[in-house]
Amino acid sequence: MQNDLPKGFKIAAVEANFKKSGRLDLGMIFSDKPCVVAALFTRNIFCAAPVKICREILQTSREARVVIGNSGQANACTGEAGLKNCREIQNLAARELGVDANEILLISTGVIGAKFDMDKWRKSLPELVKKLGENDARDFTDAIHTTDSFLKYAAREITLSRGVARLTIMAKGAGMICPNMATMLCVCLTDVSVAPAAWQDMFTKAADLTFNRVSVDGDTSTNDTILGLANGASGVPLDSDDDREIFYDELLKTLGEVAYMLVRDGEGAKRVMHINVSGAATDGEAEKVARAVGQSQLVKTAVYGGDANWGRIINAVGYSGVSVNPAEVSLTLCGIERFRRGQPVNDDCEAQLTEALQKRDINIDIVLGTGNGNFTFLASDLGHEYVTLNSDYRS
Amino acid sequence: MQNDLPKGFKIAAVEANFKKSGRLDLGMIFSDKPCVVAALFTRNIFCAAPVKICREILQTSREARVVIGNSGQANACTGEAGLKNCREIQNLAARELGVDANEILLISTGVIGAKFDMDKWRKSLPELVKKLGENDARDFTDAIHTTDSFLKYAAREITLSRGVARLTIMAKGAGMICPNMATMLCVCLTDVSVAPAAWQDMFTKAADLTFNRVSVDGDTSTNDTILGLANGASGVPLDSDDDREIFYDELLKTLGEVAYMLVRDGEGAKRVMHINVSGAATDGEAEKVARAVGQSQLVKTAVYGGDANWGRIINAVGYSGVSVNPAEVSLTLCGIERFRRGQPVNDDCEAQLTEALQKRDINIDIVLGTGNGNFTFLASDLGHEYVTLNSDYRS
Repeated sequence: MQNDLPKGFKIAAVEANFKKSGRLDLGMIFSDKPCVVAALFTRNIFCAAPVKICREILQTSREARVVIGNSGQANACTGEAGLKNCREIQNLAARELGVDANEILLISTGVIGAKFDMDKWRKSLPELVKKLGENDARDFTDAIHTTDSFLKYAAREITLSRGVARLTIMAKGAGMICPNMATMLCVCLTDVSVAPAAWQDMFTKAADLTFNRVSVDGDTSTNDTILGLANGASGVPLDSDDDREIFYDELLKTLGEVAYMLVRDGEGAKRVMHINVSGAATDGEAEKVARAVGQSQLVKTAVYGGDANWGRIINAVGYSGVSVNPAEVSLTLCGIERFRRGQPVNDDCEAQLTEALQKRDINIDIVLGTGNGNFTFLASDLGHEYVTLNSDYRS
Repeated sequence: MQNDLPKGFKIAAVEANFKKSGRLDLGMIFSDKPCVVAALFTRNIFCAAPVKICREILQTSREARVVIGNSGQANACTGEAGLKNCREIQNLAARELGVDANEILLISTGVIGAKFDMDKWRKSLPELVKKLGENDARDFTDAIHTTDSFLKYAAREITLSRGVARLTIMAKGAGMICPNMATMLCVCLTDVSVAPAAWQDMFTKAADLTFNRVSVDGDTSTNDTILGLANGASGVPLDSDDDREIFYDELLKTLGEVAYMLVRDGEGAKRVMHINVSGAATDGEAEKVARAVGQSQLVKTAVYGGDANWGRIINAVGYSGVSVNPAEVSLTLCGIERFRRGQPVNDDCEAQLTEALQKRDINIDIVLGTGNGNFTFLASDLGHEYVTLNSDYRS
């Protein structure tokens, strides 16, 4: 089931040699029928050429049939030449596939500023089209991954009142992951039949509750893209409130699973912090506190070291910019209350806490005592591997 | 000259055994005459007990004669017990010194949440007072340092129209260094004679242009304190505009030197980024961009690795939250323009750039093309040593 695709989708992946080593680095998703498309993009002002191209297409149409993804070059900060290369790729693929160039969406990841080697693209695209159907979801995620230490995909069958639909999500994560749009690239395919507005609405909500609540390093990338393609090939429509609710719940759950994988595989991450802030004046203030804690280098390194240095968490709450009364703030770490209404408690639990901190998932529960706002945020720790990967990324 | 103190000041430093290894960890500065005090404190809501004590004193008086500093325990997040311990220390020292308890300022650094071992304080304070005059500025910085790899102090003689005054600055830096109040602890002594309001004004301005423009890890500590004590013992007054200007310039220069030391010694830092943003709509927007670049984990690790991955800098500009036109933004790295009005340039300078990036000081010049606002910010890189130091801080 893991590698299954929804009905009517085909995948191909090839070695285009964008990277030094011989590995899959170019992938294609093709739908027999036109798909209804939902999308979310990076909020970075320097968005990459492929992001501009996708936005352009979706401004006039909510339909597409093809996604082409590559790793190795991000085609970001490449100016006019970058856009021109995107259009040539669309035109080449359109000719080979017999579709319209505007039905082809592009996603790219890799070094910012690096330009496409168009000779490699020209050589590989016909081969890619020829292979359609020979590869699976795993291969596509393989083609778009960079420093990921494991591939991120998930698939589900969803039983609705009018039949069974399928959902497959493929993503790449690892570095440059944060505040809004937590993955660099993610494609979500389904064969359910859904109207464009309902699909975008459902998709935005689910992404906001999952992908937009995780952080690896606080860097929002130029290329972050999440695409949802629904081709209706199952013949199963989402035409009742019950079915929409069932489908949405599964979408949320599956995106949540993939978002968790992104944090678990934060570059070199050993641990996932589940930061739950409650009792804030508003949800927005809870979010500010949770992000300050999840993005604190000192909290991240302490968690990496399995050090129960809870003071660093309180420190981050204190500089988050949210106004709290220190005498009302409490902190529970791995289920052990360590700070209650401004005073340290359970000083004798150090050994127990240190043991709890050896686990992969670390619960950090912060109560502000101001109101009823809350927010949950997932963040990775910060270790030597992160530094190694990112100080030597391009070599 | 380096270790010299302004007239009328004495220093003592002892091993109080707050830390595991036998090293100086408790220091005292004593002035024969009452000093005019200027001060800046952390904006962290969870400010430490010694910060509260200093603020309390300075609310009713601008005078003090003594500074006691320790490393090992921060006395932050220690609740009422922490404040009580501070008052006991003040009372003990007041008795030994024959001064008023309210003339004694306290500064502490170390693990947040750790409580003072008062038996050690009671035992060490008389010894500390007895040693007054036997130690120098170097020893005091030694006593308050934590993970600093070198001691940070600077001294100057300043020739004014009515005679020579002296200025000595002692600081500890390394971790938990950022946005406002860049050092954890800093004491600035002078024997010039100056009025309280003029001294605070001068001091705030100079600190804002130096200490508040550096970052190691973006964490604002619970204990950040910068104190300025002027005892007038030189007999030289600051009573003309010319003298005030000369003195201010030297103060600014010396604080700038110490602020640079803090960044140079950011935990495990190899390099100092000098991030200069110009052409912004306002100085505030230039500051936002400079801070986003200086605090980006991806920029910091690339600089650590000596990797000319300039795209990460542009990426940080793009998510800084400042509205810019990508087609107007330019970037010069180590004197080599690499991005001009939204387009990469000088692609063939990679080798030259990689060589330039091996130096200790890295100039990053960003022009936004929006207006006349500018801001300069110093930030350290992020390397393996930072992770090692901070994942294992308490052991």
